[in-house]
Amino acid sequence: MPAFFTIFASRNSYHINIMSTQKPSIPKGTRDFSPLEMAKRNYIFNTIRSVYELYGFRQIETPAMENLSTLMGKYGEEGDKLLFKILNSGEFRSHLLPSDMQEMSSAKLAAKICEKGLRYDLTVPFARYVVQHREELQLPFKRYQIQPVWRADRPQKGRYREFYQCDADVVGSDSLLNEVELVHIIDEVFARFGIRVSIRLNNRKILSGMADYCGRPDKLTEITVAIDKLDKIGIDNVKAELADDGLTAEEIERLQPVFAIQGDNSQKLDAMRQLFTDNATGLKGVEEVSYVLDALCQSPLTNEIALDLTLARGLNYYTGCIFEVKALDVEIGSITGGGRYDNLTGIFGMPGLSGVGISFGADRIFDVLNQLDLYPKDAVQGTQLLFINFGPKEAAHCMKLAAETRKAGIRTEVYPDSVKMKKQMAYANANKIPYVALIGENEIAAGTVSLKNMESGEQTQVLLDQLISTVK
Amino acid sequence: MPAFFTIFASRNSYHINIMSTQKPSIPKGTRDFSPLEMAKRNYIFNTIRSVYELYGFRQIETPAMENLSTLMGKYGEEGDKLLFKILNSGEFRSHLLPSDMQEMSSAKLAAKICEKGLRYDLTVPFARYVVQHREELQLPFKRYQIQPVWRADRPQKGRYREFYQCDADVVGSDSLLNEVELVHIIDEVFARFGIRVSIRLNNRKILSGMADYCGRPDKLTEITVAIDKLDKIGIDNVKAELADDGLTAEEIERLQPVFAIQGDNSQKLDAMRQLFTDNATGLKGVEEVSYVLDALCQSPLTNEIALDLTLARGLNYYTGCIFEVKALDVEIGSITGGGRYDNLTGIFGMPGLSGVGISFGADRIFDVLNQLDLYPKDAVQGTQLLFINFGPKEAAHCMKLAAETRKAGIRTEVYPDSVKMKKQMAYANANKIPYVALIGENEIAAGTVSLKNMESGEQTQVLLDQLISTVK
Repeated sequence: MPAFFTIFASRNSYHINIMSTQKPSIPKGTRDFSPLEMAKRNYIFNTIRSVYELYGFRQIETPAMENLSTLMGKYGEEGDKLLFKILNSGEFRSHLLPSDMQEMSSAKLAAKICEKGLRYDLTVPFARYVVQHREELQLPFKRYQIQPVWRADRPQKGRYREFYQCDADVVGSDSLLNEVELVHIIDEVFARFGIRVSIRLNNRKILSGMADYCGRPDKLTEITVAIDKLDKIGIDNVKAELADDGLTAEEIERLQPVFAIQGDNSQKLDAMRQLFTDNATGLKGVEEVSYVLDALCQSPLTNEIALDLTLARGLNYYTGCIFEVKALDVEIGSITGGGRYDNLTGIFGMPGLSGVGISFGADRIFDVLNQLDLYPKDAVQGTQLLFINFGPKEAAHCMKLAAETRKAGIRTEVYPDSVKMKKQMAYANANKIPYVALIGENEIAAGTVSLKNMESGEQTQVLLDQLISTVK
Repeated sequence: MPAFFTIFASRNSYHINIMSTQKPSIPKGTRDFSPLEMAKRNYIFNTIRSVYELYGFRQIETPAMENLSTLMGKYGEEGDKLLFKILNSGEFRSHLLPSDMQEMSSAKLAAKICEKGLRYDLTVPFARYVVQHREELQLPFKRYQIQPVWRADRPQKGRYREFYQCDADVVGSDSLLNEVELVHIIDEVFARFGIRVSIRLNNRKILSGMADYCGRPDKLTEITVAIDKLDKIGIDNVKAELADDGLTAEEIERLQPVFAIQGDNSQKLDAMRQLFTDNATGLKGVEEVSYVLDALCQSPLTNEIALDLTLARGLNYYTGCIFEVKALDVEIGSITGGGRYDNLTGIFGMPGLSGVGISFGADRIFDVLNQLDLYPKDAVQGTQLLFINFGPKEAAHCMKLAAETRKAGIRTEVYPDSVKMKKQMAYANANKIPYVALIGENEIAAGTVSLKNMESGEQTQVLLDQLISTVK
């Protein structure tokens, strides 16, 4: 805690204002995380991290603040509005005309008085990182990144202004083996969590082929946006939207296979192959999906993977395979997604670098694990053993024993104050400490410990060795 | 990576601007962390974290953004200027008069157009957390927190605008056992790092007693500020500063024992006891230090702990024991510090809560570990095994073997593209991968693997079992 006092000292300014009582709070859309929540979140992040590393992804971190020139224009007009902008320090008006302050639009003025903004996602900073450090990087570059991002969005249930993203991307390799490995990673992560999921796969080139096939390649964006809403608004509304977008009834009819093709993955692929006999892009998409599914058959997955021709995701950016994951036992929408893109770093002047990546939705995974109560007990267990404090002499004895239990790796506390037993036991209960050691004069004399199992209530006299083996 | 594309989709805005080439950069005073740097930093944070947890401290996190009303006035006037302020979203001028924009001072105008700021340290957010969540907390509350903080300071060597703090504090307990445990934590952390340190201890009440003893209790702050500079400016300049502060030569002379008392800890304590016969505050300080040192004698420390009567730190806040740690083998200043304070939460209207805490300086520890080259090899080891890709058939075989090595816990990659051997080996070298597996037609037929040790250059034919045991 003391860093800021050092600052104080070095500046000869020693005054802490004791302010009039204010009820403290945090900005809306942000959260404090309690010890229990942190333990759960760490379990999630550590699980994802271990699997990423098992597949050779290496972690980077980028600053919370990026230059606004890096961020602006990357997330659309709406995205620009959702960037948190940081006011320049000091005389932030100095390079403005007095009239500017009144006459400029808010957005324009903001751009004049703010040079920096908070990271909005991990993708643009990653692209910036790759271009900035291209001399040091050995391609392909497999990186993962687990950091918070900030969006000035309207807060609502499940939507926060500060939240974590957990991304892994490979850049600099066209190989579909990357797609195969990313699906393995998704499968392994959810297997470790014990969450049953459906992994859905599609390919942007199939959607592109469909737009060609129906005769409206010019409407690819509109078609994808409409199909993307299928889950939410249903097929009739999707068709209505396509009509609004200017597709004729006949053209819409030709899109029907996307909604209608039934069967297992290979039946669907066969049907699409027949549809796309003259359509190189569409066929390429089918073959890419087919390759990935075949490769996945060779090492069995825990979860099901299904070709979903209606899966769309952020089409304009993605150029190849796209993934999405849904939990089977909780209704919550997509909990992981990703895909291949061909021009991530083009926005920073380094074209032609292909990449593919996935992102786990930590907040939703948190909700799913909570609902299904799937946290392993030892992942959320804090302190394992508490020594009750009966007085200075007993506490000194306990401190010595605590040094031993800690040496054995047991997370141990000695209650610091010799207050009433009831208060100390309440502390153990509130912190869900499973074992409590009681050492009074008798125990000191006998060289034993009274060990209480807080769950069963059972209390036994043990020696130090037994104490350690019981608690472990 | 894909979250922002979903945002795109939901807003019907699909345009990524391909901007004119810009050389991307990051804001001054901030840093990107490469995979190797991250591995080293994670080793530091994980070591500190494990020791904190071994002593029963539990992690919390608070938002990067706090309300400015929480932050302002807590770090002195200079500190207020160093806060990064976040511009309100949208029409941030709407509640201002046109004249305000021109006539207000920058600081005042900033306060009108910014409601939020970035966390400046972990202490004030922790105090805010304790008060805000007091109903849920069971005191004493032992929390640790490892998060970045931001300061709009002038960047210079070793001083960044974004850096991590690693704090642990106990609030709600007066017991000196907390001080004892915090010293044990410091000792254990540096023992694990293999950094030899000197832990220095003093007590604010001793300094307070000295101000009384020299006849100038009114100049406690000035005396402490001056003594705090002893290391940097030397004793003669400290005395000159005290004279400037209005102390007479005789008064300064009476402070002499602080600089002059020699001997081991108990000799120093005896000398101070004699000095403070009539000085209750000073004596209390001596007894507190004495208690802590006695208790520490009972479980041996790896590092030396020394009473340092000239240790001052941020005096105004601290009210009891203060700690500081210096590396013995690298010149770098304090790498850890802390102390007891009596009114942390008073600033938010919850008086009377005593606390004591420490903070590890992660950036300086990083520098020390680098200089002494003390990182354990396995802490910075990324991928352990790379399968070379000789073509689609071989790669498919390798993917199956990779599934097995990963199951055995080996961090494994299959090179995704079947490019020239030289390029693949360069990848292994650049990423310091210690083992490379080469599997061609012959190996597939024989069911073996050619395993190359990249350090020795030795290449052997092994079976899968041997591969796993060798790499592990």
